[in-house]
Amino acid sequence: MKNMGEPRIKILAMPKDTNPAGNIFGGWIMSQIDIAGALAARDANVHRVVTVAVNGMEFHEPIFVGDTVSYYAKVVKIGKTSIKTVVEVTAERIFEGTKRCVHVTSAIITYVAVNAEGKKQKIECCKKHKLALGITDD
Amino acid sequence: MKNMGEPRIKILAMPKDTNPAGNIFGGWIMSQIDIAGALAARDANVHRVVTVAVNGMEFHEPIFVGDTVSYYAKVVKIGKTSIKTVVEVTAERIFEGTKRCVHVTSAIITYVAVNAEGKKQKIECCKKHKLALGITDD
Amino acid sequence: MKNMGEPRIKILAMPKDTNPAGNIFGGWIMSQIDIAGALAARDANVHRVVTVAVNGMEFHEPIFVGDTVSYYAKVVKIGKTSIKTVVEVTAERIFEGTKRCVHVTSAIITYVAVNAEGKKQKIECCKKHKLALGITDD
Amino acid sequence: MKNMGEPRIKILAMPKDTNPAGNIFGGWIMSQIDIAGALAARDANVHRVVTVAVNGMEFHEPIFVGDTVSYYAKVVKIGKTSIKTVVEVTAERIFEGTKRCVHVTSAIITYVAVNAEGKKQKIECCKKHKLALGITDD
Amino acid sequence: MKNMGEPRIKILAMPKDTNPAGNIFGGWIMSQIDIAGALAARDANVHRVVTVAVNGMEFHEPIFVGDTVSYYAKVVKIGKTSIKTVVEVTAERIFEGTKRCVHVTSAIITYVAVNAEGKKQKIECCKKHKLALGITDD
Amino acid sequence: MKNMGEPRIKILAMPKDTNPAGNIFGGWIMSQIDIAGALAARDANVHRVVTVAVNGMEFHEPIFVGDTVSYYAKVVKIGKTSIKTVVEVTAERIFEGTKRCVHVTSAIITYVAVNAEGKKQKIECCKKHKLALGITDD
Repeated sequence: MKNMGEPRIKILAMPKDTNPAGNIFGGWIMSQIDIAGALAARDANVHRVVTVAVNGMEFHEPIFVGDTVSYYAKVVKIGKTSIKTVVEVTAERIFEGTKRCVHVTSAIITYVAVNAEGKKQKIECCKKHKLALGITDD
Repeated sequence: MKNMGEPRIKILAMPKDTNPAGNIFGGWIMSQIDIAGALAARDANVHRVVTVAVNGMEFHEPIFVGDTVSYYAKVVKIGKTSIKTVVEVTAERIFEGTKRCVHVTSAIITYVAVNAEGKKQKIECCKKHKLALGITDD
Repeated sequence: MKNMGEPRIKILAMPKDTNPAGNIFGGWIMSQIDIAGALAARDANVHRVVTVAVNGMEFHEPIFVGDTVSYYAKVVKIGKTSIKTVVEVTAERIFEGTKRCVHVTSAIITYVAVNAEGKKQKIECCKKHKLALGITDD
Repeated sequence: MKNMGEPRIKILAMPKDTNPAGNIFGGWIMSQIDIAGALAARDANVHRVVTVAVNGMEFHEPIFVGDTVSYYAKVVKIGKTSIKTVVEVTAERIFEGTKRCVHVTSAIITYVAVNAEGKKQKIECCKKHKLALGITDD
Repeated sequence: MKNMGEPRIKILAMPKDTNPAGNIFGGWIMSQIDIAGALAARDANVHRVVTVAVNGMEFHEPIFVGDTVSYYAKVVKIGKTSIKTVVEVTAERIFEGTKRCVHVTSAIITYVAVNAEGKKQKIECCKKHKLALGITDD
Repeated sequence: MKNMGEPRIKILAMPKDTNPAGNIFGGWIMSQIDIAGALAARDANVHRVVTVAVNGMEFHEPIFVGDTVSYYAKVVKIGKTSIKTVVEVTAERIFEGTKRCVHVTSAIITYVAVNAEGKKQKIECCKKHKLALGITDD
């Protein structure tokens, strides 16, 4: 995943994560994507975030038991109280003796910064910090 | 939820489903939404489906431990191999002694019908059956 | 399930819920029955309940991975501090291309109302409210 | 637990097993009771069993996070295809610096012997073997 | 397991505990070993312990789904703030119609006594109590 | 972690992973370490491995709910059938507004290569491949 940095989370897909058809359960993948995006959102110097929207989530390939699944995420926009992230998921598996890495999913997830009581909170994030995160569009 | 029928799934939110902030973990909700939509997709007379896209997923209210969470879902469009569903989530909780029901989330999830080997499969669904599902737009 | 209302909980049976023989683990079903009865018990206007007895629990049919399992429950008797509930469980599955619904389990579960410290508490439930719940025998 | 032998299962109650009120979830206890009885039923020289009935299950004391919970079980009757077991549950906890063991639950669980296809199977269990299990009443 | 007393924990290995190869996941066994040793460490009259070291952990035999796994543990040395334990794991399974018990794992785990804030705490354990635990070497 | 490459696994510590004292359960950490080492062992061009020994596992710091935990692992020795790995664990947390990364655990885990039936298998790993993995000592 170019320009996405190190994975935010990386997990081995286990038998307990399968759906009735024996593949890795789509909902399990979604739940990890949500964590990955939230970890990226923390880059905006916010204390706590809650998920407010998911868009453009596309599943290109199934994940199988035994795959190592990497979740990459980065902040793409910081609003007054919201943080938009892009999450990309890849799976590494052994296929006929050789390692293969496939692109599994993409998603755009938006979070809102909240305080300890769960109320929306203004994000303090200067232009410099945004640039450091690679955000030019404001 | 009017015109949504009986919930596809209905679960009590338990302590094990919380995030580090103590609320119900957003990813847990997403994973249940995925199941609910897939159960609705089965109405299109298909054997097995896989998730291909999630759009317009919006989180309006948090879910708390002890809430009874209902996931409603219905098919809104049937394509050659794909099935578009709408999922709505509500949570029932006791607030100052009285039951309250809040609208938690909406989502549009698209599935593709597959055969036992996971290959895309044409959906056989006549106009009559579609009408029975309340789908008029083709 | 006639006269049982809407299911209290409804869940898709997943591979992680199987026993060593590959069927859905009986104890998993019991644990959902306990939740379903406790949700029904809340109808008696009580804040919190604890399980005190299970009787007449009978398992008629196994549950398989992929079944949608519905747990119906209603209050059948309200004592000074105790609430007796009946729980019925059905499973919906695809069998040779058609949906089939089987009656899986019945159970009678009794709960006791407790306060925040876990001490027994008198239930305030007038005749009118009992009638609304369909309880005539006092 | 006199005459009950060594515990069939013994587990530390963990935070993930709590109900919304913070105590150990009754359904979790039930699911362990079902396993304990099934392990006892294996004493009747049967290959595989399924749960058919639960009776006389009574909860005397709550279980708390950190308790070591012991599940004792023994066969009390062997029929043509069925095996009746008694399960007793105790919890050990540290209370004001000293270990305390409380009697949590009792239950009578009946299993049926089945073959690999899940069909009822006649139990071959001679008088001598029954006596060895402490069963005198036939 | 001679001289090891009753098992500290005893669990049925379930399908949800398998690794991608279908055997019981080694990490699941390790996590139960850690609990077993910590329960033994409580024998040293300490309130709370944290794991500080694992040594000599050897896996002799795999565990299969359906095995009853027993975790034995005893204190072998008590230092100023640390407690050294030995853990032994056995698995009981049905093999060609007869029960067989295999020795699965050994481990030496060291814990440190801590107070409620997680700070190291001196262990008050007299010679007499040590002898009662079978510890002669000081 | 210098010279350890990218983390093998990386996970957010959640409330369901806590022990009765409210910290992340040591056994949960051990089970992730086992996965991380096994993923590293795959670098030796082996199909499947089983854990045979754990040594020198030391816990330096506790992990808290909300920490992002990284598991680094590399192969340090390849024998005829065995692979020795070193695993290092770090946790990243927000402490008084700033990110802090602490070194949590070290471990040496040895795996054995096995075939599909679980029997030991000779490892085919040339000098060149070993060098590529940074192994000079043979």
